Amino acid sequence: MRCIAPFHVMELMARARRLEEAGRDIVHMEVGEPDFPSAAPIVEAGRQALAAGRTGYTEAAGIPALRKAISDHYRRVYDLDIPAGRIILTPGASGALLLAMGLLVNPGDEVLMADPSYPCNRNFVRFMGGQEQRCAVGPDTGYQLDADLVERHAGPATVALMLASPSNPTGTALPPAQLEALLDWARHSGRAVVVDEIYHGLTYGEPAASALKYSDQALVINSFSKYFGMTGWRLGWLVVPETHVREAEKLAQNLFISPSTPAQYAALAAFQDDTLEILEQRRIEFARRRDYLVPALRELGFKIPVMPQGAFYVYGDSSAFGDDSFALAQRAIEEVGVAITPGIDFGRWRAEQHIRFAYTTSMDRLQEGVGRLSQLVGKQ
Amino acid sequence: MRCIAPFHVMELMARARRLEEAGRDIVHMEVGEPDFPSAAPIVEAGRQALAAGRTGYTEAAGIPALRKAISDHYRRVYDLDIPAGRIILTPGASGALLLAMGLLVNPGDEVLMADPSYPCNRNFVRFMGGQEQRCAVGPDTGYQLDADLVERHAGPATVALMLASPSNPTGTALPPAQLEALLDWARHSGRAVVVDEIYHGLTYGEPAASALKYSDQALVINSFSKYFGMTGWRLGWLVVPETHVREAEKLAQNLFISPSTPAQYAALAAFQDDTLEILEQRRIEFARRRDYLVPALRELGFKIPVMPQGAFYVYGDSSAFGDDSFALAQRAIEEVGVAITPGIDFGRWRAEQHIRFAYTTSMDRLQEGVGRLSQLVGKQ
Repeated sequence: MRCIAPFHVMELMARARRLEEAGRDIVHMEVGEPDFPSAAPIVEAGRQALAAGRTGYTEAAGIPALRKAISDHYRRVYDLDIPAGRIILTPGASGALLLAMGLLVNPGDEVLMADPSYPCNRNFVRFMGGQEQRCAVGPDTGYQLDADLVERHAGPATVALMLASPSNPTGTALPPAQLEALLDWARHSGRAVVVDEIYHGLTYGEPAASALKYSDQALVINSFSKYFGMTGWRLGWLVVPETHVREAEKLAQNLFISPSTPAQYAALAAFQDDTLEILEQRRIEFARRRDYLVPALRELGFKIPVMPQGAFYVYGDSSAFGDDSFALAQRAIEEVGVAITPGIDFGRWRAEQHIRFAYTTSMDRLQEGVGRLSQLVGKQ
Repeated sequence: MRCIAPFHVMELMARARRLEEAGRDIVHMEVGEPDFPSAAPIVEAGRQALAAGRTGYTEAAGIPALRKAISDHYRRVYDLDIPAGRIILTPGASGALLLAMGLLVNPGDEVLMADPSYPCNRNFVRFMGGQEQRCAVGPDTGYQLDADLVERHAGPATVALMLASPSNPTGTALPPAQLEALLDWARHSGRAVVVDEIYHGLTYGEPAASALKYSDQALVINSFSKYFGMTGWRLGWLVVPETHVREAEKLAQNLFISPSTPAQYAALAAFQDDTLEILEQRRIEFARRRDYLVPALRELGFKIPVMPQGAFYVYGDSSAFGDDSFALAQRAIEEVGVAITPGIDFGRWRAEQHIRFAYTTSMDRLQEGVGRLSQLVGKQ
């Protein structure tokens, strides 16, 4: 327990709540959740499932119809043949991460991951008694690991690589060749690979490549939360190699019994044409926000050397404003009412010189936020 | 992973499914899930929550209204004052178990528990790198631990006791004095106590006593699955001591982000008078089934020395029919089409001489099952 770090942003969010209760207006650029409710066809499918009495347990790995729908999704969107039997539904991507780490990590094992990256990744590794190895990444590799970095950082205790594309907090995706080289390296060196693909679908140029295109050994985490807009339903999935199916099902049975039943039936509607149209409109709106926010932040003096290709985050270098981005985030909330996430939530490497901005709020509010930040950093 | 045991009953259930697909009629006396759908007011509240757009994340510990409703439940039903702040909502009791074990168990630690007990308990301990210590229990202690047993079995590595009342698989509840003595022993010897109370409400005589009456240090697991009939929604809770609140919230945030939002809003309706009336009718029906099944099984030759007071299980001694209850369960399904759970799923102590019967099916079907079992064991 001593190893599980709290999120510093929680402290800022609690402060934001208190300020709001006292009547202050806060622009929220810290939230890792789309600002859209679940699409109407998904909600309606959930309501119908409840009316039909879909309230009991399901198979541990999820209902066959949904596993097949996800398999079809891989064929349609990626042109990949992923058998439904390799797809394990989980309580959110959190459940998929727990399952993946449970399958791979024993006490004393090490997992190599980018610094910065999603804070829960390292916490799941530690929860299993393992240890993360942080590998500093910067603009030169698109804030991602590459084969050269992992070759230099992997040690005898390294059992797995953890990748994320597009990444939280940087929004950058792994170029196909870089991803393929990482998977090749892992295969040759006998390491497992866990790839977080939960922001797939939310990309604003080339779609992100799936690790499943290059490897049938990768463990791929995905979710209905982000692109499909179903955060609160808590439904994700893990794709496992054929060799891991039985153990994964057994472990899922032990850890979860089964994923949420109403959520599974609702998610069947996520792949319908009318839903996909709504999701595409939302994707276009996220792209519009990114295309506004990145130049606006650069204008303020934040350095953003690589254009983020996906997710809904911008990881800005705040070194022009000092060497303590947590203090900057505190000042942002106190002085101008803008909530942002300090880099120290995501790692150590130049973390005090970075801020994560989330564009999970409307264009109006983003403009308001940028205006306030310009007051803060003295660029009025 | 090697330590996580599969459930033998899964194999039998898979066989049952194949036989049913081939047209055979199977009486299901193996299922640990109430045979009632969620009560109408709960389903309606879930539908309304969805219509109202309750599809985003909540606080990691759950919505304040539900934490307060559970606190009120403790006051109304148990006359106990449990502050809402000590109540952490989780994805099912499975999530509560994971959270409790994550808080208490480090690699190498041991957790003392009854043999027989719910198989996931030991698997969660092992998942955390710990080891279960099985303590054989029998009719003399109501198939429960007592202060004398734990005093004799606890070792230097024992960090916690795990209790369950009413117990799965035995249906027996801890008498208040026995529970209090166990909690006293734990306090004096500096061990933590985790108490599984997920079958509370499903008792057919005296209500089961809560560990919270005797200790504010116990970690108590409960769930909306069994008494409240919300299995597939995946919602449980953990009551933690004041001293553990912050760590529990932090760990829940990391492991789960938050529990299912539609489930939480639906669960608010679980405490309404109209719902409680439905649940009381169901409780009475379970009592009726128990009162039929226990004498009927005794009549067949299964020994049931202690009347199970709660849950929906009977743990019958099958030694009159040989020393291999798994083989007996296999014969039951093949020869007479009755699915039952062999004792080896719950422990080692005389496990081959026990069968768990679940009365989660209608009285008609139970009578049919008993009739078929009487053919199997030659008491026609």
